[in-house]
Amino acid sequence: MRRHNLSVLLRHLHAAGPTTRSDLTARTGLNRSTIGVLVGDLAARGFVVEGKATATGGPGRPSPPVHPRPEGAVALALEVDVDSLAAATVGLGGHVLGRRRVDRPGGRFSPEDTVDELARLARPLLRRLPAGAPVVAAGVAVVGLVRVGDGCVRVAPNLGWVDVPLAALVRRRLRLRVPVAVGNEADLGARSEHVRGAGVGIDDLVYLSGEVGVGAGIIVGGRHLGGAEGYGGEVGHLPVNPTGQACGCGSVGCWETEVGEGALLRRAGRSAEPGDRTAVRTLLDDARAGDDAARAAVEAVGRWLGVGLAGVVNVFNPRRVVLGGLFAELHPLVARTVDAELDGRALDASRAVVDVVVSALGVDAPLLGAAELALDELLGDPTRMPPLAEQNKDAARE
Amino acid sequence: MRRHNLSVLLRHLHAAGPTTRSDLTARTGLNRSTIGVLVGDLAARGFVVEGKATATGGPGRPSPPVHPRPEGAVALALEVDVDSLAAATVGLGGHVLGRRRVDRPGGRFSPEDTVDELARLARPLLRRLPAGAPVVAAGVAVVGLVRVGDGCVRVAPNLGWVDVPLAALVRRRLRLRVPVAVGNEADLGARSEHVRGAGVGIDDLVYLSGEVGVGAGIIVGGRHLGGAEGYGGEVGHLPVNPTGQACGCGSVGCWETEVGEGALLRRAGRSAEPGDRTAVRTLLDDARAGDDAARAAVEAVGRWLGVGLAGVVNVFNPRRVVLGGLFAELHPLVARTVDAELDGRALDASRAVVDVVVSALGVDAPLLGAAELALDELLGDPTRMPPLAEQNKDAARE
Repeated sequence: MRRHNLSVLLRHLHAAGPTTRSDLTARTGLNRSTIGVLVGDLAARGFVVEGKATATGGPGRPSPPVHPRPEGAVALALEVDVDSLAAATVGLGGHVLGRRRVDRPGGRFSPEDTVDELARLARPLLRRLPAGAPVVAAGVAVVGLVRVGDGCVRVAPNLGWVDVPLAALVRRRLRLRVPVAVGNEADLGARSEHVRGAGVGIDDLVYLSGEVGVGAGIIVGGRHLGGAEGYGGEVGHLPVNPTGQACGCGSVGCWETEVGEGALLRRAGRSAEPGDRTAVRTLLDDARAGDDAARAAVEAVGRWLGVGLAGVVNVFNPRRVVLGGLFAELHPLVARTVDAELDGRALDASRAVVDVVVSALGVDAPLLGAAELALDELLGDPTRMPPLAEQNKDAARE
Repeated sequence: MRRHNLSVLLRHLHAAGPTTRSDLTARTGLNRSTIGVLVGDLAARGFVVEGKATATGGPGRPSPPVHPRPEGAVALALEVDVDSLAAATVGLGGHVLGRRRVDRPGGRFSPEDTVDELARLARPLLRRLPAGAPVVAAGVAVVGLVRVGDGCVRVAPNLGWVDVPLAALVRRRLRLRVPVAVGNEADLGARSEHVRGAGVGIDDLVYLSGEVGVGAGIIVGGRHLGGAEGYGGEVGHLPVNPTGQACGCGSVGCWETEVGEGALLRRAGRSAEPGDRTAVRTLLDDARAGDDAARAAVEAVGRWLGVGLAGVVNVFNPRRVVLGGLFAELHPLVARTVDAELDGRALDASRAVVDVVVSALGVDAPLLGAAELALDELLGDPTRMPPLAEQNKDAARE
């Protein structure tokens, strides 16, 4: 029971930031003295620190704010995208202690090379952590289908990977003694947008990210849609055009063949390597500058984005769709087209309750989601971490 | 705590049927004496009755089986389909006490006429209930989008209904003094197949029912996918063919325009009123008998069924797809075609873990799901019903 209450409190502080004791009391329905005891426990474990009480203008004693302590527990977050790699150290409260991203355009890299590069990115971040800030777990976002049980990448077509035991590789190469969890990039983008981005408080949410492929992270009734093995949410492989293009997955006319980066470049008559972000940026710049072919390509992708979104809205009845990646850059150019397709094609009842917005966390949404994934176990049971007094005793013994 | 344990026990007995005390002990992790007390409580409320202990061949005392008592709590289940109406009285354990269905082909009926007809169907069933069997709630399955909060049918294109307060109409017309819940037909089909049909123990399940339209009930991680307002799961309105047929929903090329009953008849060059089940049956008979046009139509619908299913499998990563309605009749004729499309189009990782089977409960799946919906509140808190001794006292006072 106490473990559960500690978890509720720490999750709230982690997601919402500094909160006064009286707000915590009001939110949890627990009484004032219980909150005092729980906050004391969290403070003893180094997770929170109490600020100075300031007069609120309301009746009663001023209530001190409780702050999550970033250095109280740190996640190592890693990301393997098609055209870049990234690492970050993220403390409680979602505070980013350090972050690095490197471009890696146009090529396919082996899992081993990739993990070597991740280690090079991560090492200086780990060295620069404040003294005594414990890394409690690592999370990895990857553009592929991930078996959640063991962090194995079953298939990542845009990396050319099949059955890569990524969690194990990362753990070994980085010599981590903490758990390593792996998640699909779009799933983790959905997660961070839900906790601290454009989807806060929205329990029926679709995060849709366009890159080379199209990924989606879907939250249904506040819970992530994983499916039987964690491969769910692959809306990029909804069949939308039976006479369309061959898809990397082996099928024909999948949604991502009409709205991914490749479709955009193809429609403008331009060719580029998969994952060539520069070619895509140039095309979008040209469209903004009024280039006809670029504008027509953008418009066509916008229409197909709306067509597929109508299906997504009909199937999930979400309250909000958050667009990330390419779609976030595209949306300002095609918002009216997307809305018109949704109006014409989605069921009115579901259309009426959904809005379409752009990612608040941008390119880092999946990386920050990997941090959330890593911290999840600790947030679920804060007693996993012993009080600081015992930690120090252990340290002295070592 | 006790309320929760009573709920766990009664749900198990309701779904799984007679279970020995020792099995209940093993399943719940509660100790023998606690199980004894809980079973005693459920018996006092009239929900269960204990059978005679029989020797099991194992060590220890023989353990008496606990039976759910159908007449301990009865649900009135109602169904509004495009071409028929149905009513049933269903007791604890899913025991059908009475059931009636009437065809109502080819026309559109007002909500008032429909509810009158439901009342005529239900009345004799209610009269014939065993003495003292309490009707605790009613559930209604309907082919339309239902706002779960108040049981309002937002839109039912194939009935021609918009914003019909069906729960309120049923409650008033049938003079019910118990709660009335309304659900989408396919959602409720999924529910009954999950509890006691082809989806028992399968927590990632898609129930897909073909009729005039295509409905789906989707269970994700053991929970029904409703979406923000309960309109989710409308896979029949996934866009699969941009150059296809106009759909009743106002869009073009929705999946149901390629696989619904209308598509089947159209492809065979036959015309019929929507909901004309006889025309569909004749066509299927002709296909079985080798009629070329009928076989070609069936084959084409089978291909489109596979195309759309590939999308559904990619999005939900289900462990099982249960086919109901038209699709249950169609499947034996096109199983190989459907499998081939799934093999060619669905992502391998998700394809590998899914099977496609036919509904176990047949045409009554939604009706039986309406009974499950009705009983849900009681199963969640069995203490809502007072012990029989108090019930009798109350009766004596009246």
